[in-house]
Amino acid sequence: MVTKLTIEYDGGAFAGWACQPGKRTVQGELERALRTVLGERALDGRRLALRVAGRTDRGVHAWAQVASYRHEVVDPRRLNGLLDDDVAVLDAEPAEQTFDARSDATSRTYCYRVLARQTRSALERGRALWWPGRLDREVLAECAGGLVGRHDFTAFTPSETEHTRFRCDVMRAEWRLERDMLEFWIQADMFVRHMNRVLVGTMLEVAGGRRTVEDFTRLLVGEPRSAAGRTAPPHGLALAGVSYERRRADSA
Amino acid sequence: MVTKLTIEYDGGAFAGWACQPGKRTVQGELERALRTVLGERALDGRRLALRVAGRTDRGVHAWAQVASYRHEVVDPRRLNGLLDDDVAVLDAEPAEQTFDARSDATSRTYCYRVLARQTRSALERGRALWWPGRLDREVLAECAGGLVGRHDFTAFTPSETEHTRFRCDVMRAEWRLERDMLEFWIQADMFVRHMNRVLVGTMLEVAGGRRTVEDFTRLLVGEPRSAAGRTAPPHGLALAGVSYERRRADSA
Repeated sequence: MVTKLTIEYDGGAFAGWACQPGKRTVQGELERALRTVLGERALDGRRLALRVAGRTDRGVHAWAQVASYRHEVVDPRRLNGLLDDDVAVLDAEPAEQTFDARSDATSRTYCYRVLARQTRSALERGRALWWPGRLDREVLAECAGGLVGRHDFTAFTPSETEHTRFRCDVMRAEWRLERDMLEFWIQADMFVRHMNRVLVGTMLEVAGGRRTVEDFTRLLVGEPRSAAGRTAPPHGLALAGVSYERRRADSA
Repeated sequence: MVTKLTIEYDGGAFAGWACQPGKRTVQGELERALRTVLGERALDGRRLALRVAGRTDRGVHAWAQVASYRHEVVDPRRLNGLLDDDVAVLDAEPAEQTFDARSDATSRTYCYRVLARQTRSALERGRALWWPGRLDREVLAECAGGLVGRHDFTAFTPSETEHTRFRCDVMRAEWRLERDMLEFWIQADMFVRHMNRVLVGTMLEVAGGRRTVEDFTRLLVGEPRSAAGRTAPPHGLALAGVSYERRRADSA
C-alpha cells in the first residue's frame, strides 16, 4: 500500500527537508511521527523511507509539499498531534501501488516573495525578502519572460554539485506584482539546487540597474556560477505545489 | 510639532499595546526607541506619551495601527533599527498641531481570520484561528448583516469594565470567505474591550448550530456578558486600519 502525503511547513527552524544526523529536518520529524502512528511492529524493522517531490533547503517553506511512503494511510490529525506547530500534514490519501512522489512528479511550482518598500514588515518577517533598494518592475517582467522554455541552469547552482543534469524545462515564469509585494512564480519539470534563489538574486541585480536583461538571458546557456548574481536568502522562497499530471505529449 | 506614526506588529510576544510595568508592550518598546532617536535632551524630562487609535490586547496584531506624539518627525528606518523584528514603523509624518491619534479617529477597522478546515496550518499558526468544527457559512453572513447600525455591545465585553459607553456605531460588518480562510471585517466608531473576540466566538457558536441567528441579534440591546458566547483567542485578530475622515454628517 502506498500513501501520498501533502505537507505544509514553515522552514525557518528546519535544516531543510532531507534527514541529516543531529539536525532538525522536516523528513526526520515526519518519519518519527509516522513510525509512532504506524507502530514499530507494522514496520517490522524496515526503514520508513519517505520519497519527496522537492528537497527544499534550510529555511525554505512549503505550502504543499508532496511525499510518499509504502505503508497504509494514517489520519493526518494523528500525525499533526505528534508534530510541532511549524509543520502540518494537510492530507494523506491512498495512491497507486507504483506511485513515487519524487519520480512521478511532472512539475514543481515555487514562489519567491519580495517586499519592495522603504520600511521592513513585522508580519512578513521570515516570509518575504525585504528589498528597500531600487527596483524596476518592468525589467523583472522582461527577465521572467526569457525563462520560459528549455535552458541550461549551470550558472544558477553551486559549482560543486551532485547534479548531472542542468537543463530544466520551464513551463511558466512570471512576476506577479501586487502593491509592494512582488511574487516570482516559476513552474518547471525539475530544479537544480539554489536555482530559484540565484535566479531571484540575479534578477534583483538587473532590476536595480547593475546588469542588463540581455546579460541575464545570456546566462541560460550553461555559463559558470560566477557569471550569475547573489543567492537570495531562503526565507522568501516556498514550494507552492507539485503536479503529477501527465502532459499530452507523453501520451501521444 | 505633532507626528503621526503608522505601525505594524505581530502581537504574539507582546502583552498588548499599553504600557504595563515589567511587561513587554508595543507602546513601551516604541517609546524607548523614540526617546533614543529624539534624544533625552530634546525631551527635556517630559514624558513622551504616545496617543493611540486602538489599544490592542495581549496577542492581537496590527497591520496599520496609528499613534501620535508631540515632537518632531523621525526617520522610521532609524526607529526600526532600534526595534525588535516583530514591530515595525511603516511611516512617520508631520500632522496638524491639534492632531490626536486617539480622539481624532473616526473609525477603526478590525479583521478576525478563521481557518476552517480539518487539518491545522503551519504557516497560519499565530495568524488565524484554526476551526475544524462544523460551520455554516450562510449563517455567518446573516449574523454579520445584523451588526450594521448603532447597537449596545454590553454582552460582548467583560462585566467588570472601565467603559462607560457601550453603544457603538458599526459602519461595516461582513464575512469574506475565500476557500478555507474566513475573514470577519468590522468597522465602527469605537470598540469595547474584547468586543471583536466575543462577537466572533458567539458567531462561531451560531454557525455551529448551538444558537440561532435570532439569539445572536437579540444580544445587541444591552444583554449581560453571560448571555453571549466564548471569547475567541487573540491570535486571529488584527487591527487592520484607522480612519480620520470626517463623515459628511459632521460637517453638515
